[in-house]
Amino acid sequence: MTSHPFDEAMALRACGDHLYTGTTHPAYAGFVGPFGGVTAAAALRAVLVHPLRKGRPISMTLNYAAAIAEGTFVIEAKPARTNRSTQHWTLAVRQGDATVAVGVALFGTRRNTWSRSELVPPQAAAAESVPRADDSGREPCVERYEMRFLEGAFPTKWDGCDTGSSRTCMWVRDNPPRPLDYCSLAAVSDAFFPRIWCRRRDKVPVGTMTMTLIFHASIEELRAHGDDHLLAEARSRGFNQGYSDQTAHLWGSDRRLLLTHHQVAYYRS
Amino acid sequence: MTSHPFDEAMALRACGDHLYTGTTHPAYAGFVGPFGGVTAAAALRAVLVHPLRKGRPISMTLNYAAAIAEGTFVIEAKPARTNRSTQHWTLAVRQGDATVAVGVALFGTRRNTWSRSELVPPQAAAAESVPRADDSGREPCVERYEMRFLEGAFPTKWDGCDTGSSRTCMWVRDNPPRPLDYCSLAAVSDAFFPRIWCRRRDKVPVGTMTMTLIFHASIEELRAHGDDHLLAEARSRGFNQGYSDQTAHLWGSDRRLLLTHHQVAYYRS
Repeated sequence: MTSHPFDEAMALRACGDHLYTGTTHPAYAGFVGPFGGVTAAAALRAVLVHPLRKGRPISMTLNYAAAIAEGTFVIEAKPARTNRSTQHWTLAVRQGDATVAVGVALFGTRRNTWSRSELVPPQAAAAESVPRADDSGREPCVERYEMRFLEGAFPTKWDGCDTGSSRTCMWVRDNPPRPLDYCSLAAVSDAFFPRIWCRRRDKVPVGTMTMTLIFHASIEELRAHGDDHLLAEARSRGFNQGYSDQTAHLWGSDRRLLLTHHQVAYYRS
Repeated sequence: MTSHPFDEAMALRACGDHLYTGTTHPAYAGFVGPFGGVTAAAALRAVLVHPLRKGRPISMTLNYAAAIAEGTFVIEAKPARTNRSTQHWTLAVRQGDATVAVGVALFGTRRNTWSRSELVPPQAAAAESVPRADDSGREPCVERYEMRFLEGAFPTKWDGCDTGSSRTCMWVRDNPPRPLDYCSLAAVSDAFFPRIWCRRRDKVPVGTMTMTLIFHASIEELRAHGDDHLLAEARSRGFNQGYSDQTAHLWGSDRRLLLTHHQVAYYRS
């Protein structure tokens, strides 16, 4: 049995106090450098494997400060404060002398409390009944995700038409399928193509500048999901003077909200 | 003419490389320590007054690592990376030897581009026609905001009833009115009372753990707003095992989206 490319991409080696080194993986090459979702996942993993880590991911923000080159990188994950049931981390990703990403993460212990979902997932035909998107000729990282579009599919023509909507809804999971964990959930949440491409069918230059992930699920809930399809929707609130936002929701197969993803991207248009 | 309490709360003094000291303001005392919105605003202000700052706020995340005591604090705001049109910052707030908050901020230059709003603001009666909420007997920071509730008002009874909705919609502005700027916009976005109190009418212990602000507006758009009422709505996606999220939107009087606020709070229930 060969290893999954995602597990290869998540391989980190301790290289000093709070320092972990990893290497970009060709299977996750994106349209401008390595896929940002995997960079975020690697930073999250640095905390997860840190010997001082307590609890599980609650939230994480990573700011992409510069284009990441193919090759090795070093993640610094430092505990800034450890409380009884929460822990705060600072994150930095470096290549040589260059800082390419900075961030913070919040870990915590979940407790049995009154709990309710309030956001209802969209109605969706069963994953198996939705045709799988053709990813031939796309970037390697696109091939790493099995996508079945319900709305807002990747454009088949680039006519610059303002569609009036930046919403995409899809079933998505790793390709090949792989049991879900916090890192793979972080990565897949960034699998949406740029919202301005959806809205305008115009392949303008675009890039993610900051990403905030909010983990709603416990490790047990992620394990229960296994390698099933995730229901995922993303939308921008608007595009203003070179910056747009995007919120994505990812639900498990039992209609449970697992993760919310908020990002800001730049665009040139 | 006396100064506005918000301007007093924003007073910072340089005290070393990348270091600024400030003092908590009694007018913004909250129900557990100083109002978190003003702490975020002070951290943002440290970047705004920093001599190396380029551009205007695009996004900011602040993680609240510990309760902040009344008194002085020191903000460290360091430029992590400066690009041609963007700048990345790391933030830390300390009291004595204790780290009480950590974060990151993204600043950038806005450009003339194709721009569109996609999120439509809710229909709302004119601010002047909506009764002003009674803030008598509440925390000082509550008195600092003029609130006119359209939906999901502060509960008048605590009967533990599950209302089924955590949504609040209101008109809000500084009290007394004050021209809007990036710092006051950051602060007012945190003026919503805890979402679980709205949902359950049960005053359980609660606290903000992380806050991400996405600034959609240019400085010119903020100046054009002046001291008019903001239309603001907030809602939680759900409450799970001691943690809940909240997204708030703030629109200017011309129905322009000015800021999106995402946070995670803990709750005990």
